[in-house]
Amino acid sequence: MRHIAVMGYGTIGSGVVEVLERNKEIIAKRVGDEVDVKYVLDLREFPGDPAEDKIVHDFSVIEKDQSVSMVIETMGGLNPAYPFVKASLMAGKHVATSNKALVAAYGTELLEIAKEHNVNFFFEASVGGGIPVIRPLYTALAGEVVEEITGILNGTTNYILTKMDKAGETFETALREAQELGYAERNPEADVDGHDTCRKIAILTAMATGHEVNYEHIYTEGITKITDVDFRYADAMGTSVKLFGSSRIQDGTVHAFVAPVMIGKDHPLYSVNDVYNGILVKGNMLGTSMFYGCGAGKLPTASAVVADIIEALKNQDHHVEMGWDSENLTISAMNSISFRYFVRIKGIADKRVKEVEAVFGKVEVVELDHMDEFAVLTETMTEEDYEIKAKKLSGIRQRIRAEF
Amino acid sequence: MRHIAVMGYGTIGSGVVEVLERNKEIIAKRVGDEVDVKYVLDLREFPGDPAEDKIVHDFSVIEKDQSVSMVIETMGGLNPAYPFVKASLMAGKHVATSNKALVAAYGTELLEIAKEHNVNFFFEASVGGGIPVIRPLYTALAGEVVEEITGILNGTTNYILTKMDKAGETFETALREAQELGYAERNPEADVDGHDTCRKIAILTAMATGHEVNYEHIYTEGITKITDVDFRYADAMGTSVKLFGSSRIQDGTVHAFVAPVMIGKDHPLYSVNDVYNGILVKGNMLGTSMFYGCGAGKLPTASAVVADIIEALKNQDHHVEMGWDSENLTISAMNSISFRYFVRIKGIADKRVKEVEAVFGKVEVVELDHMDEFAVLTETMTEEDYEIKAKKLSGIRQRIRAEF
Repeated sequence: MRHIAVMGYGTIGSGVVEVLERNKEIIAKRVGDEVDVKYVLDLREFPGDPAEDKIVHDFSVIEKDQSVSMVIETMGGLNPAYPFVKASLMAGKHVATSNKALVAAYGTELLEIAKEHNVNFFFEASVGGGIPVIRPLYTALAGEVVEEITGILNGTTNYILTKMDKAGETFETALREAQELGYAERNPEADVDGHDTCRKIAILTAMATGHEVNYEHIYTEGITKITDVDFRYADAMGTSVKLFGSSRIQDGTVHAFVAPVMIGKDHPLYSVNDVYNGILVKGNMLGTSMFYGCGAGKLPTASAVVADIIEALKNQDHHVEMGWDSENLTISAMNSISFRYFVRIKGIADKRVKEVEAVFGKVEVVELDHMDEFAVLTETMTEEDYEIKAKKLSGIRQRIRAEF
Repeated sequence: MRHIAVMGYGTIGSGVVEVLERNKEIIAKRVGDEVDVKYVLDLREFPGDPAEDKIVHDFSVIEKDQSVSMVIETMGGLNPAYPFVKASLMAGKHVATSNKALVAAYGTELLEIAKEHNVNFFFEASVGGGIPVIRPLYTALAGEVVEEITGILNGTTNYILTKMDKAGETFETALREAQELGYAERNPEADVDGHDTCRKIAILTAMATGHEVNYEHIYTEGITKITDVDFRYADAMGTSVKLFGSSRIQDGTVHAFVAPVMIGKDHPLYSVNDVYNGILVKGNMLGTSMFYGCGAGKLPTASAVVADIIEALKNQDHHVEMGWDSENLTISAMNSISFRYFVRIKGIADKRVKEVEAVFGKVEVVELDHMDEFAVLTETMTEEDYEIKAKKLSGIRQRIRAEF
């Protein structure tokens, strides 16, 4: 019997307890021993809950119990998640967490402590919910030099953009709907401003390169400026707009960003809709792979945590090499990255195209009926180039990066 | 320095040597030691090739060299792959193979021998080429009860079907094109008759259930009867036809089959085109995940072999639990599986629909211009039901299983 403790009995934490119970047999077979949840740490009581008798309010009970070989952190946030995880590792306990904020902020230190204490610090569930992506990066893709990771990493924003795309909704309506369905928080900034995606692409980039990534260095733009009008143009062009977290790694240079990107139907991420996530990984030998699935949700995310539990307990006395070192990776400035641009401009196309082409060079023009504006698609240029050129044009209403 | 031997210096074997050389640094970092190809076993000589001096013609050189800790089998076929792999494992060497025929036919025995001799027998490249799917099944999805695996597992047939779909080509033209491009063999039966897909879904089913699967028990139907006319109807309906290998596992009952299936645009495998493969895995907690990528090709497949090399050499003294036991899984008869059916019938819809509905029950009728036939989509029924009913109707020209 292996004893573990779950810290935080919210959605994910209770999901972990549920998955461990419902798939008890196969998990015991994989681990080679039964897995028992000895403690559940939470400030609240849960009368009537099956975990009622396991609830403790004091972390030190878990920390000091040497029979507990692994701790699951599903509290979220940095405090007290960070000190509790750190103390657990230092007490020689494995840790699995679903907490991307923790991993993005303190991953390097926690990985180091895990190594020193010959235990494991796993975080599959911190990116892509139930989609296996962290583990493939250090196992199945172990022999690859990763050249690109681009993902739709946030289910809330993907749900909103999908509603805007397929149902013609405004951002505000789609957001409200997402909130009513429980997909979006009352304070949705972490999602819609791209901060959640930013932490996730930082973690993936660190996994892919083996070096620490400071997520604050990644250019991050959310979806709040994307409008239903943009999607009317997108529809006319057969394109869509998705919030990408992306890293492109070449010759030691890393370009990383979070931003809405307009893509065409043949992009592998085009058909990743609703709350689903999709993560595209390009390796130098492998070419392009894509992983697709439920990016959030109680049981899928819990299932990813359980995969961590199984790997840690199978490697009970063994630190599995994964993660990254403390060498800080330089992220190139956003203005050196190149895109095409979808630009909406006030006025009538016929009258202004010459002027626009004098500034941007050759463009494709897109017009909708009954509008006092038109749109153009530029050729590929750097962000810096775009900014300099765009200043020369009056009446620019929108600019979305495009890749198709 | 870890010494390995590569058996078979064809496309995949030379790809493995190339990946090991080109990604030498990252591979050494992952393994914790340099990996050296000491021997390449092949009947031919390769004058001028970088591997020229490593070529041996006699397997016993490899078998007897105790410094060789791992053998890579990329010869294909059963003989001499089977005796060589068996002897390698018995000599205490890890083995990785890309050979699905070998794994489907002798996997159970080779897994047992590997366990007895405390070495590893890995075969990531045997299914899905470069797509990580075997490894996720025993790592990332380790805690899941797998309920379904459905895949587009053969690049050749997917290329042919894509050409028929998008370019309106006949089967024969598309096959010839695939042969000219080197995607299809001169004798394409293993691909177009579904045998390759059958072995792959057998391996995936065994991985998912933990029990041996006899691939000969899996109903297998290829794509040779699919015509350009079928795709004209599919186009009119917004559907496509894909060759599926599929297992659906419920309450200990396993339904498995290989057959062309008509699917709609919202099926996650709909947009898997050309030589790409896609594999959908449904877990009881996780819901649906999909893995997508290059299902074949020299470097992607070699990259999957290299992932096996890394895992085996990292676990040099350790047998990694994976695979299946010798308990033979019962595959339910095809006639108990349920589908909808796309059926093309001679005659004029208006005149025959009543008769057709008297037999099949409610149907959707699809008509194309200038045809002496029409098509219907039935409701869901078992294969057995369909066969009994279809006998009552004259003039049935085509029957394709449908899921949408």
